[in-house]
Amino acid sequence: MTSDPTTTIPAPTNPTPPAQPVLTVTTGALPASAKVHVAGVIHPDIRVPMREIALHPSAGEPPLRVYDASGPYTDPGAAIAIERGLPRLRESWVAARGDTESYAGREVRPEDNGFAADDRLTPEFTTCHRPRRARDGRAVTQLAYARAGIVTPEMEFIAIRENLARQQAAETAPRRDGDSFGAAIPAHVTPEFVRDEVARGRAIIPANINHPEAEPMIIGRNFLVKINANIGNSAVTSSMAEEVEKMVWAIRWGADTVMDLSTGRNIHNIREWIIRNSPVPIGTVPLYQALEKVGGIAEDLSWQVFRDTLIEQAEQGVDYFTIHAGLRLHHIPLTVDRVTGIVSRGGSIMAKWCLHHHRESFLYEHFPEICEIMRAYDVSFSLGDGLRPGSIADANDAAQFAELETLGELTRIAWDHDCQVMIEGPGHVPMHKIRENMDKQLEICAEAPFYTLGPLTTDIAPGYDHITSGIGAAMIGWFGTAMLCYVTPKEHLGLPDRDDVKTGVITYKIAAHAADLAKGHPAAQLRDDALSRARFEFRWEDQFNLSLDPDTARAFHDQTLPKEAHKLAHFCSMCGPKFCSMRISHEIRADARQQGMADMARKYREGGDLYMPALQDG
Amino acid sequence: MTSDPTTTIPAPTNPTPPAQPVLTVTTGALPASAKVHVAGVIHPDIRVPMREIALHPSAGEPPLRVYDASGPYTDPGAAIAIERGLPRLRESWVAARGDTESYAGREVRPEDNGFAADDRLTPEFTTCHRPRRARDGRAVTQLAYARAGIVTPEMEFIAIRENLARQQAAETAPRRDGDSFGAAIPAHVTPEFVRDEVARGRAIIPANINHPEAEPMIIGRNFLVKINANIGNSAVTSSMAEEVEKMVWAIRWGADTVMDLSTGRNIHNIREWIIRNSPVPIGTVPLYQALEKVGGIAEDLSWQVFRDTLIEQAEQGVDYFTIHAGLRLHHIPLTVDRVTGIVSRGGSIMAKWCLHHHRESFLYEHFPEICEIMRAYDVSFSLGDGLRPGSIADANDAAQFAELETLGELTRIAWDHDCQVMIEGPGHVPMHKIRENMDKQLEICAEAPFYTLGPLTTDIAPGYDHITSGIGAAMIGWFGTAMLCYVTPKEHLGLPDRDDVKTGVITYKIAAHAADLAKGHPAAQLRDDALSRARFEFRWEDQFNLSLDPDTARAFHDQTLPKEAHKLAHFCSMCGPKFCSMRISHEIRADARQQGMADMARKYREGGDLYMPALQDG
Repeated sequence: MTSDPTTTIPAPTNPTPPAQPVLTVTTGALPASAKVHVAGVIHPDIRVPMREIALHPSAGEPPLRVYDASGPYTDPGAAIAIERGLPRLRESWVAARGDTESYAGREVRPEDNGFAADDRLTPEFTTCHRPRRARDGRAVTQLAYARAGIVTPEMEFIAIRENLARQQAAETAPRRDGDSFGAAIPAHVTPEFVRDEVARGRAIIPANINHPEAEPMIIGRNFLVKINANIGNSAVTSSMAEEVEKMVWAIRWGADTVMDLSTGRNIHNIREWIIRNSPVPIGTVPLYQALEKVGGIAEDLSWQVFRDTLIEQAEQGVDYFTIHAGLRLHHIPLTVDRVTGIVSRGGSIMAKWCLHHHRESFLYEHFPEICEIMRAYDVSFSLGDGLRPGSIADANDAAQFAELETLGELTRIAWDHDCQVMIEGPGHVPMHKIRENMDKQLEICAEAPFYTLGPLTTDIAPGYDHITSGIGAAMIGWFGTAMLCYVTPKEHLGLPDRDDVKTGVITYKIAAHAADLAKGHPAAQLRDDALSRARFEFRWEDQFNLSLDPDTARAFHDQTLPKEAHKLAHFCSMCGPKFCSMRISHEIRADARQQGMADMARKYREGGDLYMPALQDG
Repeated sequence: MTSDPTTTIPAPTNPTPPAQPVLTVTTGALPASAKVHVAGVIHPDIRVPMREIALHPSAGEPPLRVYDASGPYTDPGAAIAIERGLPRLRESWVAARGDTESYAGREVRPEDNGFAADDRLTPEFTTCHRPRRARDGRAVTQLAYARAGIVTPEMEFIAIRENLARQQAAETAPRRDGDSFGAAIPAHVTPEFVRDEVARGRAIIPANINHPEAEPMIIGRNFLVKINANIGNSAVTSSMAEEVEKMVWAIRWGADTVMDLSTGRNIHNIREWIIRNSPVPIGTVPLYQALEKVGGIAEDLSWQVFRDTLIEQAEQGVDYFTIHAGLRLHHIPLTVDRVTGIVSRGGSIMAKWCLHHHRESFLYEHFPEICEIMRAYDVSFSLGDGLRPGSIADANDAAQFAELETLGELTRIAWDHDCQVMIEGPGHVPMHKIRENMDKQLEICAEAPFYTLGPLTTDIAPGYDHITSGIGAAMIGWFGTAMLCYVTPKEHLGLPDRDDVKTGVITYKIAAHAADLAKGHPAAQLRDDALSRARFEFRWEDQFNLSLDPDTARAFHDQTLPKEAHKLAHFCSMCGPKFCSMRISHEIRADARQQGMADMARKYREGGDLYMPALQDG
């Protein structure tokens, strides 16, 4: 029942073992939770993981099933061994399609790891898997299959995963509610619906053929709102062991994808450890590594170095690349009057390159070649918003929307190459300007999924930017953003540690869920209702267990009422027994039974005047 | 410069001194901050406090003035002595009006303090001030004065306070932005504007004539969005010393009003200590104390006990009373099918009473008499929403809106008595149902100010309900709510401690400020812009000092880069020097100067094609 044990993993053996800390990752089920698997129908071998939260017998309710991005780490039946990596679930699916080949792959070069050597070198992953790529220039993307009418195992997996609890919702809560701003959320998710959404470009399945460890998931406006957690070392701090644990920790609390934004040494090797152990899609910004390869001098970047990095990372299995190809030379002057200039790292690097050479971005010029690489591995595009606003003052300005127009143009080119695409969005935006971001993106990018960072709704609260941005994230998620990139309390101040990662993930799970509720997702409210019933019936353990963070809920309760007996108490420390509205409500219901209140309520609704005395005086 | 010193106050001497901890409250200026005062014109003796945040000389900017609710505690020039209470600022203003009289007042009775005795009895406050009340049935409310065309010192004080920085905004940022949903926020706040808004009932000035220590403030849709922090002991925990410090601590971080929701023993004496030391309006729910007086048995409540409690608290100086007079007998049956019944404590108590006696609420029946008491002291109404939803499932239901209709009816009655009124609102509401709450409230209650608790936008995150509700609070604040009642991380789980109070206040300052920005408050963005400029120019100290919580911002930064030298560094731990987009942006601007980019930008805007090469291939 304790939710945070750790499994200690011996450091991998290696011919020349550099000093490495012992690897520990967090494993074990969340409180009262069990991992269950649902089998496919079209593809009977697929097993879709879900989490079942058991309730107290007095509830008289079945366990509640919830979406589960945490992978085998929360499965007590799974043998976790970081040095071996996760089971290669999708390997046979990819092979069965017969359109790829394995090959020797690119050799790792010293610059891939920032020339780290000796005890500064993170060891290579224990097993070297030969990469696969498309045969004969074929498109091996989920988009290509979808367009060809093929329902892949990935698509059925996703249908089952997304369909979670909708049957139950249909039975217990038939009334649909919400406002989805023109989205088309179905009552029931079929594999065919998944295929169709992918074929239209309205959703993507980030699933590099070289990341077979990943459990398929989908990003699109007509599915559950997803969240991304960023991890990664920097030149200043952190190690491989920390980053692998951050990834496991982030998905434990609900991150749907993880971006590895490492910018220090050992980028190649750290990423390999992360991917081999990640059950969620991994995204990167290849430009960061390319810049490291040229010693951090933006002007020295070239298409050749960048292309080499794309292939390096595609072979490793990165599922989506942020590509800042929308920032063009002629956009840069639009930023000169900004309060905070260009705040995207990738954007500023490309702007620097463009200005220095006074030529068009090589990412823009070589975009079709980038597409060809992406489609050979099924790496999805995440078209970067290099000109996103970095302050309230710069929101929705000419630079930002000029770049968005280019992203719309690039979306269509990527689609012509059968590549999957999502679009990155801001940033810092006050509430009244959020909706315009969503509306423009949908229109300009033809409904390709939107993936936003926050947005932060004010600049004045460093240390609390998970909250300033959680507000904006919930709103833009409601308006139609498909994935929300988290912001941690350390934003603008430092690199997030483990606690910050958790706070960021929980905050964004709140935003995503609030958005799902507001959009009218058919089953989203089941968890709210189950928790509220537990609250009303004083099932404290169920309240904790149904919450996004059972450990914190329990710890907060126990700070004032630590005794086990209080877990059964029909009151809490806030009001004490005399003022407990919930307890009094139960008494009212008991009275109601005596007085036939349901009958009274009917009369009231019918407009009878029995219970409507007029105000006596005044 | 350190922001959290404490002043140690010896326990008050008392004829029979019970054991009391030594009183400590937090004093001292916030970092880089000074207290300044602005004098009145109509009333030259008024001195309106503001906080000035000094910036680094390299900024070339004057200090930034911000609204300051923290009172003398952050003024190094003020002598703080809890046992003496704060200076009685408004005493002469009240006396000068000549419409009140001082009198002996009600004697404190044992039941006022829950029959606490001996060492369980909190000592009385050191000084007994004779209460004042209206002479000859006069209305001594700010509403009555406003209607009579009188601009009170309170109104001029507020005009200066609210007008803060608008002159500067008019000079530096002439363009108004935002969407205020039909509010009428002026470019300049005059005392006459304040008077007019109060006269219309669109704003209230909670200012009991017996709380002359309070610095006048206003709650209304056309002013800055305010926040309230709840404190108070319960039968289970906490003491007077803690509650006084919680009040001081809450206003230090920005609480505009404080509600004392004590429900344990010593309610009377603890409240007296709080009021005598509070520079912000204090609100209460008199029903809580009335219930204590009848031993916690709701059925034993009576109009007599309640009336006695109103007078007791009005004499002490409570500035606004939550009165649950809108919950009527015939509404109760509407709650029987709810998931969480009645979650308002006051609502559940009154429902219990109504059902037990099977008669109309004595609060509703005696409402005109309540008005007469309120107007004799200028206690403002906060009409309670006893039927607010306690879960997503119950949001915007028939019970909630039936009560709101009654609140609209009562608003007009209170106005007929020259009483000031605001209306309390929910609760738990998914995002798509928030707007309806605001629109209905404005319509039904004729634009009386709305005062909402959150709302929480999902039920599934106990332990993080400051965030689930901060989202809803920002939105409803944008839509027009005048004051946001904070929710702390302990909501639903326990009583907030000091840390929780701070987290709740900062979260709600974020929500209120985000709302001000989105409404287009003329000067709100000045602070965002100042902080963003500091960020862009690597003025780390200024970033910390301009933030809502300088201590936390600094501590987070120092976790990774603790050295003083890093406070001048042109990068941070997130990206390190090579990837710092801000640094690169500066290089871009340097290049821009060389290349004449401003000129290029102009050409681009004019539609020139010089910088718009077509995509080369694809």
